[in-house]
Amino acid sequence: MHLIALLTDFGLEDGFVGTVKGVIKSINSRADIVDISHNITPFDIMEGALVLRASYSYFPEGTVFVAVVDPGVGTERRPVAVKTSRYYFVAPDNGILSPVLKKEKPEKIIHLTEERFFLQRINETFHGRDIFAPVAAHLSRGVPIEEMGREISSLVELDIPVPQKEGGYLVGQIIKFDRFGNGITNIEEIPPFEEIVIKNYRIDRICRNFLEGDSDRPNIIRGSFGFYEVFVPRASAKEKFGLKLGDLIKIKLKG
Amino acid sequence: MHLIALLTDFGLEDGFVGTVKGVIKSINSRADIVDISHNITPFDIMEGALVLRASYSYFPEGTVFVAVVDPGVGTERRPVAVKTSRYYFVAPDNGILSPVLKKEKPEKIIHLTEERFFLQRINETFHGRDIFAPVAAHLSRGVPIEEMGREISSLVELDIPVPQKEGGYLVGQIIKFDRFGNGITNIEEIPPFEEIVIKNYRIDRICRNFLEGDSDRPNIIRGSFGFYEVFVPRASAKEKFGLKLGDLIKIKLKG
Amino acid sequence: MHLIALLTDFGLEDGFVGTVKGVIKSINSRADIVDISHNITPFDIMEGALVLRASYSYFPEGTVFVAVVDPGVGTERRPVAVKTSRYYFVAPDNGILSPVLKKEKPEKIIHLTEERFFLQRINETFHGRDIFAPVAAHLSRGVPIEEMGREISSLVELDIPVPQKEGGYLVGQIIKFDRFGNGITNIEEIPPFEEIVIKNYRIDRICRNFLEGDSDRPNIIRGSFGFYEVFVPRASAKEKFGLKLGDLIKIKLKG
Repeated sequence: MHLIALLTDFGLEDGFVGTVKGVIKSINSRADIVDISHNITPFDIMEGALVLRASYSYFPEGTVFVAVVDPGVGTERRPVAVKTSRYYFVAPDNGILSPVLKKEKPEKIIHLTEERFFLQRINETFHGRDIFAPVAAHLSRGVPIEEMGREISSLVELDIPVPQKEGGYLVGQIIKFDRFGNGITNIEEIPPFEEIVIKNYRIDRICRNFLEGDSDRPNIIRGSFGFYEVFVPRASAKEKFGLKLGDLIKIKLKG
Repeated sequence: MHLIALLTDFGLEDGFVGTVKGVIKSINSRADIVDISHNITPFDIMEGALVLRASYSYFPEGTVFVAVVDPGVGTERRPVAVKTSRYYFVAPDNGILSPVLKKEKPEKIIHLTEERFFLQRINETFHGRDIFAPVAAHLSRGVPIEEMGREISSLVELDIPVPQKEGGYLVGQIIKFDRFGNGITNIEEIPPFEEIVIKNYRIDRICRNFLEGDSDRPNIIRGSFGFYEVFVPRASAKEKFGLKLGDLIKIKLKG
Repeated sequence: MHLIALLTDFGLEDGFVGTVKGVIKSINSRADIVDISHNITPFDIMEGALVLRASYSYFPEGTVFVAVVDPGVGTERRPVAVKTSRYYFVAPDNGILSPVLKKEKPEKIIHLTEERFFLQRINETFHGRDIFAPVAAHLSRGVPIEEMGREISSLVELDIPVPQKEGGYLVGQIIKFDRFGNGITNIEEIPPFEEIVIKNYRIDRICRNFLEGDSDRPNIIRGSFGFYEVFVPRASAKEKFGLKLGDLIKIKLKG
């Protein structure tokens, strides 16, 4: 019996998530459902992709992930399911799986076309309920992914900014803030450096824990998203230093 | 073993929902609990009723629904349980079940009076914890609803506005906004029409998906709540057009 | 098989909670996980402690509580696990367990040092994922708490304000607001009194339910947190009377 993990931008106000779970339980009463997040910023595919990337590998083998941030719901964007060596992913084909599938090699990509695995009446505003939830429930019951549609060879790619080399600098940027106001950057590795520049602040070291940081300037730490983060101890770096998405982190490289 | 689905205005900050679940698990350790929503606007019985109506039918037969938006907690308003052919509903008798029970015929309505199915000490500010949760847990264990109190014949009715015919128009209104800023109306069916008027905008068609809509005016689609909705592609119609609860949708009928 | 109940300040936006659950399910696929709250104000140990205190006793015997509000994550503050006659508690040693352990006598306090019960790679920003979740999962599988580290004799105490006698008054204060805008005080018992003073309002009775209160002044009721609360019917006392944390409640004692 597989675990089903849900990530959406449906929010927790309107009952959308509960409805999705009702659908799953109607198809597989023993499904074990875990929420990753339902508070992805509406329509923000990149944010959903980053949160999924940060969390999926902590789930047990066989987990079926349902990732629905889907501004194109009801249009011709394809509903898909992907099998990797360890997991299943069910999502609209809009790039939300890109960052994960750079780390987990897809073994099979299926365009979901077999309507017998959908709800009988489909509303074009809510495929999370009518297509993705029932498909995930059937997968969790052991229906082979191949039966759910026809195999395709590639998916839409998400254009996530990567750090750039410019002169003697490696230049990254803030791509997300977490609830504590930490600024998650797109920098996974920091080579030997002379200094790091964020806005008008110059930083000369990487912290090992949050309280080691200074209170009067931004600090850098390797965070739990798998990227370096900008923080300030016991407070919101976003608010304290007026950080914004896209703010640059310039690493002056050694030598 | 029945599923228990929870809908409340308790919020997710204070631990109220966790406490309710602890009570359920103490009575039925194998209860399977699903959240519909706990972020109903405080005291907003109609919103709770609409969200319950939109979601309940997607749950498996036998589900026990607990719906607690309860400004009258501790007063003489009655705690009740209702059995329909497919489901159980546990709630304060304040109208929150009205819209559902227009669609699901009640077979038995019980005024919950048997205190042996409540917690032993009852605080008059939290019947969700002390009355509704334990009753639902006992129902999920198979205790017959008849044992839980005395049968009554009717419940408080909720006064939900319905669309009105005025001259050559059918006039509905916005009764809720969802998290995406879509305006849910009280219009379930739209007859053949010449045009639809919302504020100063004139609309000549019903969209089939969100991206088909225009960006510079409100659009109409049949939404997942079972009502027509006012939307704008990839943005909040509420914010973009300054929509408010009660705003009118005037449908100029043909012929 | 034990229940695991989670209380954190991780929020529901970033996937932190989902990741914690993935870790638990990877170690104990049959763990039954219940959320108490993840919306504790960031870094607010006292709020977390109060919410845990209000809810824990409603859970079944054997429940493993994980309470992580942890501004000192990654520093030398100790990760601990506590066994009482009925429950287990896993938390950073920063006072978050103080109010509970005044009510539940600890039988064993363990400083978590056995790294074989942690994740293999530990990020110093996320012990909820890397230390507390796996330890709780192992406890829920029946691993004896003694194996997880060395016994210690005491924990950090939280300095929660208690009501003071001043002249003929018992003086308490507001220590938390709940989602409805009720002001939770630190007063557990109110002796016979002449009047109660909140700001410029004088109150002469304790209400038994919310609707019994007056609409034009603060009212007092014994609330579900186990403390007396300041409220106003069907509205937010916090907003209506401009209440703040620390506002005093002065009880003029009889005789």
